[in-house]
Amino acid sequence: MAFVNEHYLKLKAGYLFPEIARRVQAFTRTNPQAEIIRLGIGDVTQPLPPAVIKSFHHAADEMGRVETFRGYGPEQGYEFLLDLIRASDYGARGVSVESDEIFISDGSKCDSGNIQEIFALDNLVAVADPAYPVYVDTNVMAGRTGEADDKGRYHGLYYMPCTEENDFLPELPTRKVDIIYLCFPNNPTGVVADRQVLQAWVDYARENRAVILFDAAYEAYITEEQIPHSIYEIQGAKECAIEFRSFSKTAGFTGTRCAYTVVPKSLMAFTKSGESVSLNKLWNRRHTTKFNGVSYPVQVAAAAVYSDEGKTQVRALIDYYMENARIIRQTLRDAGFTVYGGRNAPYIWMKTSGGISSWDFFDLLLTETHVVGTPGSGFGPSGEGYFRLSAFGRRDKTAEAVERIRNKISP
Amino acid sequence: MAFVNEHYLKLKAGYLFPEIARRVQAFTRTNPQAEIIRLGIGDVTQPLPPAVIKSFHHAADEMGRVETFRGYGPEQGYEFLLDLIRASDYGARGVSVESDEIFISDGSKCDSGNIQEIFALDNLVAVADPAYPVYVDTNVMAGRTGEADDKGRYHGLYYMPCTEENDFLPELPTRKVDIIYLCFPNNPTGVVADRQVLQAWVDYARENRAVILFDAAYEAYITEEQIPHSIYEIQGAKECAIEFRSFSKTAGFTGTRCAYTVVPKSLMAFTKSGESVSLNKLWNRRHTTKFNGVSYPVQVAAAAVYSDEGKTQVRALIDYYMENARIIRQTLRDAGFTVYGGRNAPYIWMKTSGGISSWDFFDLLLTETHVVGTPGSGFGPSGEGYFRLSAFGRRDKTAEAVERIRNKISP
Repeated sequence: MAFVNEHYLKLKAGYLFPEIARRVQAFTRTNPQAEIIRLGIGDVTQPLPPAVIKSFHHAADEMGRVETFRGYGPEQGYEFLLDLIRASDYGARGVSVESDEIFISDGSKCDSGNIQEIFALDNLVAVADPAYPVYVDTNVMAGRTGEADDKGRYHGLYYMPCTEENDFLPELPTRKVDIIYLCFPNNPTGVVADRQVLQAWVDYARENRAVILFDAAYEAYITEEQIPHSIYEIQGAKECAIEFRSFSKTAGFTGTRCAYTVVPKSLMAFTKSGESVSLNKLWNRRHTTKFNGVSYPVQVAAAAVYSDEGKTQVRALIDYYMENARIIRQTLRDAGFTVYGGRNAPYIWMKTSGGISSWDFFDLLLTETHVVGTPGSGFGPSGEGYFRLSAFGRRDKTAEAVERIRNKISP
Repeated sequence: MAFVNEHYLKLKAGYLFPEIARRVQAFTRTNPQAEIIRLGIGDVTQPLPPAVIKSFHHAADEMGRVETFRGYGPEQGYEFLLDLIRASDYGARGVSVESDEIFISDGSKCDSGNIQEIFALDNLVAVADPAYPVYVDTNVMAGRTGEADDKGRYHGLYYMPCTEENDFLPELPTRKVDIIYLCFPNNPTGVVADRQVLQAWVDYARENRAVILFDAAYEAYITEEQIPHSIYEIQGAKECAIEFRSFSKTAGFTGTRCAYTVVPKSLMAFTKSGESVSLNKLWNRRHTTKFNGVSYPVQVAAAAVYSDEGKTQVRALIDYYMENARIIRQTLRDAGFTVYGGRNAPYIWMKTSGGISSWDFFDLLLTETHVVGTPGSGFGPSGEGYFRLSAFGRRDKTAEAVERIRNKISP
């Protein structure tokens, strides 16, 4: 008799975004005239940069001729893209990363969800609260937790509350943890970590032989010069951290799918008997056994992001979204709302009206303003009473959405 | 201290194909003049069909305009592609599959590797021997096995030897198993299963409440009319089987990446306390949490496979490769080799010269003829003494490869 993985049954409700989609669909079914504006799911709205489109066409043509056709590529990604990443994303910031430390994938969601597979089940995992739900859910599914309590916290995880009191920065654990998920610029709060904060984490990890899983999917949105873009800008990080990067939010690849993960060769974890094992080798084994490389035309398209043309066009995209962020932040603040983030990140983290629950605020906004955002509690119990707005909308819609909120909702 | 998943350390050597790549690289480094012909890894060589290229361009253009740009799509795939699959791959063969039973993915390697995650670790898993290595390796990595013995068989798996004696068809288990990997047309042996064989498996699975994981990646290569293309052509299969399909071998998508998995809503597995759980729901949770959908242009390109133009072009591709298969089979048979497969599958399964080991034959062929094939033992201990040749090469190279073998290698 085939038995199911019962850990899946511990998961609470649906994954956050499908639940949002369900509520929006139910609302539009009874209110077909409502003009919905979506600032919920962090999905981009501007087209792919022209340089990317041009490369896409070029690669499609290559796939149509026998001389230039590509079948299976290296699972880790093509050298031409690895080299560009190495030089532009790291070398240009003084960080040395080798090509065989980079693994190109079809998304940071996949990578940050799959990475836990190379670790033992009895590691103590630390997650920020609130955090991107995939970190928690994939550990639940793998069996690293018990049941959730009535607040939605799973037994067996170490939660790091991020609140107004600590400026939404997770604090160093008061007991030893083994694996630590960090995300800066942060989804959902929009805060960033400076060198001192990151150095403290790297020091903690090295002292405790813990591994940091550093999600840097939003690094391109950093505007303040002193803020590190990569964990590897911090001394010692190559001995304790894995980093996730994505083309999704940088170059509009949410529907095109390309990302990468860096696993330094100097990064070790341990067997129970105390032998050190290269995580680069383990991840390589996972990646080559359960994945078959990113679509060739997509990799060619991603490479165009690093051309002079591409860089300029991507910069313009990011500026566009960051101007949205400024408009949201400014308008809501002027209207009396308490608002965080949006300076070095495409997310605004606002307090709900009069401290009502995040889902009540979701329903209120949907019903009264037809604006869709993301309930803070969907990211963890400490997100309760908060709400995330995304700056990835179209300019006119974004401006209209915050106008509607200002006119119809009191802080 | 971060601990590794020690199950990875049980894996023998590298994954088969990287090991082949390593040996070929070593040979070409010392023999740069050698003109290598690759009939090893099952990778296609003919370009994508023109209808597919045309759709690729169309979708790339859509991604470049704000009105038609697509961000995150449904993780399960776009309705336009799901509908085509439902109607053409199933409806046309009298099989009823609903759209929400289909999950579009970036490859059958990924799907057949990931599927085991939704099952408990203590299920007894049955695999054919030889078989596609991903089935075994992913179960080892998940912790469903002990160590391997000296033949490479992992303790805790149920192996079903496929040999000349049983016409390379796995026999029904003599003890109760819970999960069964089947692959028809078979990789690596090239054999197919008729209705009677498949009905026996479905009956076994239903009687024992086992689940069949049916890999049909090569179904397009079936030439004999009475052979089922889908497990769902068999009475009762929707209550006991998951099916994997791919555009890789059908339409040349090995480097473009698109596949799908069917998980019927009537398919259940069980909790330890005996409650039935929908595997469709569990897989949906896994798919939406650890995957973010296939690249939009790739899905549009895949949809073109179902156009009238696309169907004709894909048919021509398959005919091309099957003529290669005929040439390989015929030439080697005429030369006195014992050869199987190649009639309903793009693989030829040959016995090595005088029964030498598969890797010795690999090295012999590489050294003497500069032809690369795949050692049968790489697919499991019962593959020892066999060798797989792929029909996916270019016609001229394929013909030359078998000529070289005929001239230089005795059977």
